[in-house]
Amino acid sequence: MSGENGRGPRNVKLVIAYNGAAYHGWQRQADDLPTVQQQIEDTATRVMGHRVVLHGAGRTDAGVHAEGQVANFHTPNTAIPLDGVRRAVQARLPGDIAIRSAIDVPDDFHASRSATGKTYRYRIYIAPDRPVALCGQVYHYPFHDLDAEAMRDAARRLVGTHDFRGLATSSDDRESSVRTIFRCEISRQEKELHVAVQGDGFLYNMVRNIVGTLVEIGRGHRSTSSRQAWQPDRIDLILSRCDRADAGPTAPAEGLTLACVHYD
Amino acid sequence: MSGENGRGPRNVKLVIAYNGAAYHGWQRQADDLPTVQQQIEDTATRVMGHRVVLHGAGRTDAGVHAEGQVANFHTPNTAIPLDGVRRAVQARLPGDIAIRSAIDVPDDFHASRSATGKTYRYRIYIAPDRPVALCGQVYHYPFHDLDAEAMRDAARRLVGTHDFRGLATSSDDRESSVRTIFRCEISRQEKELHVAVQGDGFLYNMVRNIVGTLVEIGRGHRSTSSRQAWQPDRIDLILSRCDRADAGPTAPAEGLTLACVHYD
Repeated sequence: MSGENGRGPRNVKLVIAYNGAAYHGWQRQADDLPTVQQQIEDTATRVMGHRVVLHGAGRTDAGVHAEGQVANFHTPNTAIPLDGVRRAVQARLPGDIAIRSAIDVPDDFHASRSATGKTYRYRIYIAPDRPVALCGQVYHYPFHDLDAEAMRDAARRLVGTHDFRGLATSSDDRESSVRTIFRCEISRQEKELHVAVQGDGFLYNMVRNIVGTLVEIGRGHRSTSSRQAWQPDRIDLILSRCDRADAGPTAPAEGLTLACVHYD
Repeated sequence: MSGENGRGPRNVKLVIAYNGAAYHGWQRQADDLPTVQQQIEDTATRVMGHRVVLHGAGRTDAGVHAEGQVANFHTPNTAIPLDGVRRAVQARLPGDIAIRSAIDVPDDFHASRSATGKTYRYRIYIAPDRPVALCGQVYHYPFHDLDAEAMRDAARRLVGTHDFRGLATSSDDRESSVRTIFRCEISRQEKELHVAVQGDGFLYNMVRNIVGTLVEIGRGHRSTSSRQAWQPDRIDLILSRCDRADAGPTAPAEGLTLACVHYD
């Protein structure tokens, strides 16, 4: 039943975790820089005995991590037990990439097109001391002045269906920039502040721009002029004017993790 | 008052933290591989305006981390405020190295020779799933069968003054291999087991060999033959026979952190 385009009777869904610090993002690069997709494809190709092409749910940027990236691939090989494949591939991958699960899915499942949403988590480490053990895993904010309540107020204003152009690093006028944020929550974990954002989709750099804006709002009390500019209702302005210049800077890649991809 | 050997009137003690994953250990290598000493010496030399030579308290191996490494250097420069030096050097170092403090100490202070002991911490991550975010920071033990109580029993037997040759990777017969362990404690931190060892000094690979032996004892119930071999009193045998072959394997470098260097 293997089709002429290489599709076989079996479609395999992988859930993948990685520490992105050493990689030029998820997506395979033409110049063979190390990427997560390239590492897994090359390893799975050796294990499966045929060329494996992964369809990823999302292209994480250089330095961005994942706990629940999803990718699927087609294989004509029906004989191999999937958990054996999972173990064999993982054993041959470096320690900063893990295959959490491998399951059979219907032939029309596509990791990106079938996704109904994603959840990202962003880690802000708040302390004067440089967190060397967490280097590359968190955004180090060395002051103690982030107002989590103001950030929560701002985060709540993001929830809903809005035009998020003002929070995208670049936008393509041919495509809609309307997205729905289901939740945006701030939680404290010891020295860290975590921002969790779940939505039906995200524009380019949207989560990092949301975090950069929330941080500006969190430190908004530092001067009288910025107190006026960076109140939580700044979010309403950004969502109504759709001007990137109104939002805060893009938060660093290293704090960001693709936590989960959602399917129906 | 600057002496002819480059010693000046000022002796500076640094407390240094680093993530050792990217480095070939603490000590400067002849072939200019990246090491922590080389990174800090080269940076401090630029900041101070004269060649800085660091005397480190201990040579951590490739991949080993530190929270409280200590080093001292002499400088004829009495004018610069030390916390300014600390900040200037740290700002020019990569994010996986931090200078926690810089203080003046008496001229005869030497980070290694003045030390009265050290504390190491070893992190064992116990869970089937590969901990990608902690890659290079912990020893991943993928089973759930470590008996912490047996390990504690064994750890207590290490405390005291003993000939530790059986737990050294290599030993030099011209030097004493007698050391004193003040404490060896096992604690659980969520998915991790931490081993903390404080002693007046350590032979080569001694902490990693202690941990490798404790792990064998912790999993000693896995078979009847090894149940007999790897009971906690195995430690007594190792300390009395002084034969490296009696001890467990050397635990991986990545789990080890030099937590603290002690001075009177």
